[in-house]
Amino acid sequence: MARFIKSNKEFIGISPDSIRFRGEKKTDSTLIKLTRYNENSLSENTIGEIEDLTDLYKPGFTSWLNIDGLHDMDLMRQLPVNLDIEPVIISEVLNTHARPKVIEYDNCLYIGLKMLHYLGDGITIKTENIVFVVKEGVLITFQERTGDVFDPVRERLKNAKKRIRRLGADYLAFTLIDIIIDNYTYLISRIGQDIETLDEKLLRSANDDILHQINKFKSELIYLHKSILPGKEMIYHLIKMDSEYINEDSLVHYRELQSNINHAVDSLNNYKEILSSQLNIYHTQVSSRLNDVMKFLTVFSVIFIPLTFIAGIYGTNFVHIPELHYKLGYPVMLVAMAIIAVGMLVYFKRKRWI
Amino acid sequence: MARFIKSNKEFIGISPDSIRFRGEKKTDSTLIKLTRYNENSLSENTIGEIEDLTDLYKPGFTSWLNIDGLHDMDLMRQLPVNLDIEPVIISEVLNTHARPKVIEYDNCLYIGLKMLHYLGDGITIKTENIVFVVKEGVLITFQERTGDVFDPVRERLKNAKKRIRRLGADYLAFTLIDIIIDNYTYLISRIGQDIETLDEKLLRSANDDILHQINKFKSELIYLHKSILPGKEMIYHLIKMDSEYINEDSLVHYRELQSNINHAVDSLNNYKEILSSQLNIYHTQVSSRLNDVMKFLTVFSVIFIPLTFIAGIYGTNFVHIPELHYKLGYPVMLVAMAIIAVGMLVYFKRKRWI
Amino acid sequence: MARFIKSNKEFIGISPDSIRFRGEKKTDSTLIKLTRYNENSLSENTIGEIEDLTDLYKPGFTSWLNIDGLHDMDLMRQLPVNLDIEPVIISEVLNTHARPKVIEYDNCLYIGLKMLHYLGDGITIKTENIVFVVKEGVLITFQERTGDVFDPVRERLKNAKKRIRRLGADYLAFTLIDIIIDNYTYLISRIGQDIETLDEKLLRSANDDILHQINKFKSELIYLHKSILPGKEMIYHLIKMDSEYINEDSLVHYRELQSNINHAVDSLNNYKEILSSQLNIYHTQVSSRLNDVMKFLTVFSVIFIPLTFIAGIYGTNFVHIPELHYKLGYPVMLVAMAIIAVGMLVYFKRKRWI
Amino acid sequence: MARFIKSNKEFIGISPDSIRFRGEKKTDSTLIKLTRYNENSLSENTIGEIEDLTDLYKPGFTSWLNIDGLHDMDLMRQLPVNLDIEPVIISEVLNTHARPKVIEYDNCLYIGLKMLHYLGDGITIKTENIVFVVKEGVLITFQERTGDVFDPVRERLKNAKKRIRRLGADYLAFTLIDIIIDNYTYLISRIGQDIETLDEKLLRSANDDILHQINKFKSELIYLHKSILPGKEMIYHLIKMDSEYINEDSLVHYRELQSNINHAVDSLNNYKEILSSQLNIYHTQVSSRLNDVMKFLTVFSVIFIPLTFIAGIYGTNFVHIPELHYKLGYPVMLVAMAIIAVGMLVYFKRKRWI
Amino acid sequence: MARFIKSNKEFIGISPDSIRFRGEKKTDSTLIKLTRYNENSLSENTIGEIEDLTDLYKPGFTSWLNIDGLHDMDLMRQLPVNLDIEPVIISEVLNTHARPKVIEYDNCLYIGLKMLHYLGDGITIKTENIVFVVKEGVLITFQERTGDVFDPVRERLKNAKKRIRRLGADYLAFTLIDIIIDNYTYLISRIGQDIETLDEKLLRSANDDILHQINKFKSELIYLHKSILPGKEMIYHLIKMDSEYINEDSLVHYRELQSNINHAVDSLNNYKEILSSQLNIYHTQVSSRLNDVMKFLTVFSVIFIPLTFIAGIYGTNFVHIPELHYKLGYPVMLVAMAIIAVGMLVYFKRKRWI
Ligand SMILES: [Mg+2]
Ligand SMILES: [Mg+2]
Ligand SMILES: [Mg+2]
Ligand SMILES: [Mg+2]
Ligand SMILES: [Mg+2]
Ligand SMILES: [Mg+2]
Ligand SMILES: [Mg+2]
Ligand SMILES: [Mg+2]
Ligand SMILES: [Mg+2]
Ligand SMILES: [Mg+2]
Ligand SMILES: [Mg+2]
Ligand SMILES: [Mg+2]
Ligand SMILES: [Mg+2]
Ligand SMILES: [Mg+2]
Ligand SMILES: [Mg+2]
Ligand SMILES: [Mg+2]
Ligand SMILES: [Mg+2]
Ligand SMILES: [Mg+2]
Ligand SMILES: [Mg+2]
Ligand SMILES: [Mg+2]
Ligand SMILES: [Mg+2]
Ligand SMILES: [Mg+2]
Ligand SMILES: [Mg+2]
Ligand SMILES: [Mg+2]
Ligand SMILES: [Mg+2]
Ligand SMILES: [Mg+2]
Ligand SMILES: [Mg+2]
Ligand SMILES: [Mg+2]
Ligand SMILES: [Mg+2]
Ligand SMILES: [Mg+2]
Ligand SMILES: [Mg+2]
Repeated sequence: MARFIKSNKEFIGISPDSIRFRGEKKTDSTLIKLTRYNENSLSENTIGEIEDLTDLYKPGFTSWLNIDGLHDMDLMRQLPVNLDIEPVIISEVLNTHARPKVIEYDNCLYIGLKMLHYLGDGITIKTENIVFVVKEGVLITFQERTGDVFDPVRERLKNAKKRIRRLGADYLAFTLIDIIIDNYTYLISRIGQDIETLDEKLLRSANDDILHQINKFKSELIYLHKSILPGKEMIYHLIKMDSEYINEDSLVHYRELQSNINHAVDSLNNYKEILSSQLNIYHTQVSSRLNDVMKFLTVFSVIFIPLTFIAGIYGTNFVHIPELHYKLGYPVMLVAMAIIAVGMLVYFKRKRWI
Repeated sequence: MARFIKSNKEFIGISPDSIRFRGEKKTDSTLIKLTRYNENSLSENTIGEIEDLTDLYKPGFTSWLNIDGLHDMDLMRQLPVNLDIEPVIISEVLNTHARPKVIEYDNCLYIGLKMLHYLGDGITIKTENIVFVVKEGVLITFQERTGDVFDPVRERLKNAKKRIRRLGADYLAFTLIDIIIDNYTYLISRIGQDIETLDEKLLRSANDDILHQINKFKSELIYLHKSILPGKEMIYHLIKMDSEYINEDSLVHYRELQSNINHAVDSLNNYKEILSSQLNIYHTQVSSRLNDVMKFLTVFSVIFIPLTFIAGIYGTNFVHIPELHYKLGYPVMLVAMAIIAVGMLVYFKRKRWI
Repeated sequence: MARFIKSNKEFIGISPDSIRFRGEKKTDSTLIKLTRYNENSLSENTIGEIEDLTDLYKPGFTSWLNIDGLHDMDLMRQLPVNLDIEPVIISEVLNTHARPKVIEYDNCLYIGLKMLHYLGDGITIKTENIVFVVKEGVLITFQERTGDVFDPVRERLKNAKKRIRRLGADYLAFTLIDIIIDNYTYLISRIGQDIETLDEKLLRSANDDILHQINKFKSELIYLHKSILPGKEMIYHLIKMDSEYINEDSLVHYRELQSNINHAVDSLNNYKEILSSQLNIYHTQVSSRLNDVMKFLTVFSVIFIPLTFIAGIYGTNFVHIPELHYKLGYPVMLVAMAIIAVGMLVYFKRKRWI
Repeated sequence: MARFIKSNKEFIGISPDSIRFRGEKKTDSTLIKLTRYNENSLSENTIGEIEDLTDLYKPGFTSWLNIDGLHDMDLMRQLPVNLDIEPVIISEVLNTHARPKVIEYDNCLYIGLKMLHYLGDGITIKTENIVFVVKEGVLITFQERTGDVFDPVRERLKNAKKRIRRLGADYLAFTLIDIIIDNYTYLISRIGQDIETLDEKLLRSANDDILHQINKFKSELIYLHKSILPGKEMIYHLIKMDSEYINEDSLVHYRELQSNINHAVDSLNNYKEILSSQLNIYHTQVSSRLNDVMKFLTVFSVIFIPLTFIAGIYGTNFVHIPELHYKLGYPVMLVAMAIIAVGMLVYFKRKRWI
Repeated sequence: MARFIKSNKEFIGISPDSIRFRGEKKTDSTLIKLTRYNENSLSENTIGEIEDLTDLYKPGFTSWLNIDGLHDMDLMRQLPVNLDIEPVIISEVLNTHARPKVIEYDNCLYIGLKMLHYLGDGITIKTENIVFVVKEGVLITFQERTGDVFDPVRERLKNAKKRIRRLGADYLAFTLIDIIIDNYTYLISRIGQDIETLDEKLLRSANDDILHQINKFKSELIYLHKSILPGKEMIYHLIKMDSEYINEDSLVHYRELQSNINHAVDSLNNYKEILSSQLNIYHTQVSSRLNDVMKFLTVFSVIFIPLTFIAGIYGTNFVHIPELHYKLGYPVMLVAMAIIAVGMLVYFKRKRWI
């Protein structure tokens, strides 16, 4: 399947509020968790039945509803009613291949983003679409599967003294987006480290393996670029739109996000430039080594050519070749050959051809 | 004929409201169909005579008039009167090579776009110019020939419960444009899939066929870019112009279109970058293989050069060459030759030339 | 003389209202023609004497004054008075190398543009600077020489029923600029057609002639770009400036111009990209063919090298070479040589070197 | 010293109003000249002593003070008082390596620009920083050394009928900047002419000299770009800032400047593109010629290889080689060799290898 | 560690007001210095204990608090209270890898920037993150370690007559940022000088050492670009935001900064372009030299090929070769060989192959 853009013929032309799952199913079960907190208390509940999901908004509290797994269409069709959001939003959530974007709806703010996970030492990037719906006192997050990068926030929430406990849903959304962007930075720094290591390797020996790695990194950077750049645009618009769902006080944090994602994109572009430099160095090294070999071999051949020619002359069967009958004919020829060979070597050395 | 820009000398300087067909005739008959619907009822009629085409607007209904085939000038000249639109719009419709654009006229909104059809497995893109004229309660669409990508909408219209039945002409226009853009995405994902497959093929063997495919894809992407990019601009202006013919409520859907077409253009650019990477890899592979062959052959020749030279020396006809008379002269020479050959092989191996 | 920018030392530092001709003289005589029309009547007069040129504006009529040839300084110095325009405008008209631009003066609107003529089948582009001065009820056009692309408009003017007869000077200016831009499109489509033809030619044989054509087209596109791009900027500013000399009703037509010139510039850029692709294909083809030749020749040489070496060995004059005395020595050597040759051929074939 | 950016460690961190000369001293003496004019009178005075420099502004007159040479710090420290300008402006004047820019101060407008002189036929560009300070009724210009491109203005000033005598300091500043920009255009057209001449030279023979010229031109264009581009920005800001020191009536002239400098920058970019095309053609020509030589030589060698091999066979000393004893053995071998050689020649010719 | 972007997994997801050091520890001790001045007096005190740090703002004075070393978390946690700034600012200060940016907080202005130090003759750039916090009458600067480029300002402060003594904290901040940017310029001019020197070296001999230097400079320029470009953005926003902490009078100085950093970035881009030109010249030189060698050697071989062939013919053992018995056979062959060799030399010379 195409990695950079995905499209399924059967979903072309469906209604924008049609509740149909358009991604790949990445989990078997749906996990719904409601975290509700204010300065004084914090409760975490797993919601078993969709019917239990009522009165999401509770005055004086911030309610965070996290839904992992989007394949249960019965549940999804029920959500607009229970969560008091437009069906078009759920429909959008189900299109996990959508481009990151921000849209302000009548009673909420929709933010879509790509979450990247980095697995193990090799380059294994897992992409997951994540949607934030910010309402008055409520944050709803939709994930394609269980497992995310939000554990540090969950830790902070447990500490009643933390600022996050006093601030609202928009601040919670910020902290989660912040982590996602910090993960971009981390991912790029990991790959960047490997790219910078190539510099020294290149100077030592430019082999196929390095070339292969350069091409691999290049293609990974294009993929990262594709995942991150629309996020930069999204945050730019998010700040500019001055949404009623983002507090004036939180805006300074969102501006911080902008700086961070700009930093990530800058670095991506820098590494692209560096890779392209490295590719150049690789080709220069390879061709320079080939040139050395070919020059050596050619010079080697050229030195034997006149010698073989001389031997050829004295190998002719002319009846009258006086030199053949000289007593010292043979050793003189050998010495002459040696002189010619040495002369040519000296000449080539001087010309810096060898 | 030029594929990227088409111009016919005979149409230069005609009046902007001149009713003359400036495209290629792609159908023989004209098919006019009127679909009229509201929440309660839906009627579909084929209009046989232009005279039947009166009172397009019917209060409480949305009327969609679709015209396939633009070559009948008698009909076209009649349309401005019957449809209550300016002749300049019909003139524009007849210029099927025009660039996608949006223009707000006094009593309607003009939207031009390119519809792409993908036929079969090979890369066969068919382009068709399509025009939307949005009026109060009325949508008129002009197509170059019968056959389009709108069937899913026609299906949805038949279902009285669907939202589309309650919403107006601007929403209908949105759904049709949405399908066109989803087809862009689908087309790109199809080509993109083929492009990504080239990666593995390249690693296995870089042959002429792959080169040919890369160049083919490259030229297709340029063509797609040319067809899609002005559409991106058009939608950007459509949203910015805040037309009276687009409802405030529909605007959120049009913004969705923008995100989708941006996604398509992003991916196009990504695939361009990937193709250019692949072209690089191809050239590196081809030249690396050539280098290997030439190096092998050169080393092979070089090994025989001193051996042949030695044979040449003992082939000279000097009377006094003592070695020739030694009993073991011949075998000693052969052994010496073997030693030289092996020595050179070892040397070249150590230098990593073979 | 430089083709892309022209400058004459003697005109540096002259006053912006200095009436001096700064182009190349392209005609010997000056031709002044006044066309005056409204819905009811049309008159065309050639103005012989500058004194006859009074009362250009006639209420209820649109007056189009066209001046071909700019070298008569006596006339030019008289024009500001007779035409009621500022001397600075005439000075600007006389600078035929100026960049296309639009300036709003106190009592008129100045529009400068490049008119391109395409002559014959070869690539022969003739550039001519043309200036439009739009006043209340009056259009003045300045051309470097007689002959233009405006005949279709002159035809339309003769027809009293045409819309152009009812509309004013700004609409007349639009129709003329429209033709100029349609000629850009036509020119690009002509060259584009030739460029697209190269694709097939390239696949058949990549010879010097094709390379020469690619370079020729490339340089023509740069020249076209230089002539057309400032026109795109000019029209953008013309629309944005909301001049009082352009009617609200005419603006929609000027926006059409923008779409058309954007289309032309897009296509220019596309063809640049295609040419650069073709150049790549050319180089790949040439080097691939060279590689094939060199590989064949090298393999051919390499096969003979061991054979010649064997012959060399049996050409040595050692007294004791047993093989030489065997009855079948010679044919055995020949057969051995054949086996070696065939073996190498098979090996190279398997390695796909030949 | 670096040509593109200059910095002296000792001036880092000095106060923005510190009166210290930070350029290269380009003249030994300071020349101060005051030109005062209105429609009726014109006076030119050389100011010998700084004390004479009082009451620069004289109602009803335009006063132009030109200062050549900036190294006299006593004078410079006195200027802020005598000219009624802030010290920070003089400090800025003394930083002759500054980037062109425009700043509006409390009682004047500061405009910095690079003046380019073209000397002789070779490419010899002399750069000089020039500063314009526009005040009410007063223009002060600062030059690094005596000698400028302003003589045409001085001529025009002598003529009482010229418009320049009626208009103010802002118009005078315009005429001087106009000349500077016209000189950019002239300079580029001179270099451009030389670049365009290379086209034909390249087709005749691609030698080292042409390569050297291309690289020389390329580096000159980068230098010109660096000098001119900030000027384009500067004029853009000058027009946009709507300074009180620039009359509404003069603005149209400044817009003219913008068009002219855009034209210059456009042409620079065009010539860069052309040079890069020429570099491509050069490399193609060189490699094509090398390919021809190598192919010829290789084919030549290859033809002799089987012939030499045959001679080698009949040079072996086998006792039983029947051919050697045939009467026609030798001529038959020669004929066979000729047939083989001709056959190969025909084959290579057919394959178009020679 | 990655040079272009740094990220530590353990800091992902910490609160924006979390006081944790996220840089590399670059000093062991913390040095706090308070400089307080007005026109009349100046005092400098080293603050030993954090408790001594109270009442930073003193009416009628400008207070500059400089803190070197950021690793002491006890101190850092105390700072928000003692300095009356939000904890989020200290948290930001501790993230020394952040991108340069400007943020306006409720009671202060935050400015982050990269300070570059140039050490010795080789290219040794040391980067240090520096933060300016501008408050009413107070400037706080945070440095990663002791040692900066601010000594010239400290000198100016000692002089009671200097303007800096009369102006406020915003002007002090300007002078410090000015020095940092002047250091950018200085650094670029140092590297630029070395780059320009390469031009001549390249013409003399294109060796590996030069290639290595070009690549080294290229990578340094990318690094400089990454450090400086966000600073350009930052200053652009700083001017546009019209902060209440920057006086109207100081703005003109900040605009000066913008011009200076633009100059630096322009030059960086110019040098990038020059390096890429030099890389091209290098490759052209290397390949041209290789071509010369290969052509010479090939021509040399080719001349001997027919000669050796002739010797081979007369080395055959045919019984009937009449030439062998001619008295002058041998010298005639030698002369014929000489004629052939000279003929070929002349031919190749004429073809300009040697
Ligand atoms: Mg993208
Ligand atoms: Mg994605
Ligand atoms: Mg953005
Ligand atoms: Mg950025
Ligand atoms: Mg970049
Ligand atoms: Mg396009
Ligand atoms: Mg099309
Ligand atoms: Mg756009
Ligand atoms: Mg999409
Ligand atoms: Mg985009
Ligand atoms: Mg991209
Ligand atoms: Mg141009
Ligand atoms: Mg022109
Ligand atoms: Mg524009
Ligand atoms: Mg068109
Ligand atoms: Mg466009
Ligand atoms: Mg394009
Ligand atoms: Mg300069
Ligand atoms: Mg520059
Ligand atoms: Mg600008
Ligand atoms: Mg000009
Ligand atoms: Mg421009
Ligand atoms: Mg250009
Ligand atoms: Mg960061
Ligand atoms: Mg950067
Ligand atoms: Mg840094
Ligand atoms: Mg900026
Ligand atoms: Mg500077
Ligand atoms: Mg700039
Ligand atoms: Mg720049
Ligand atoms: Mg560049």
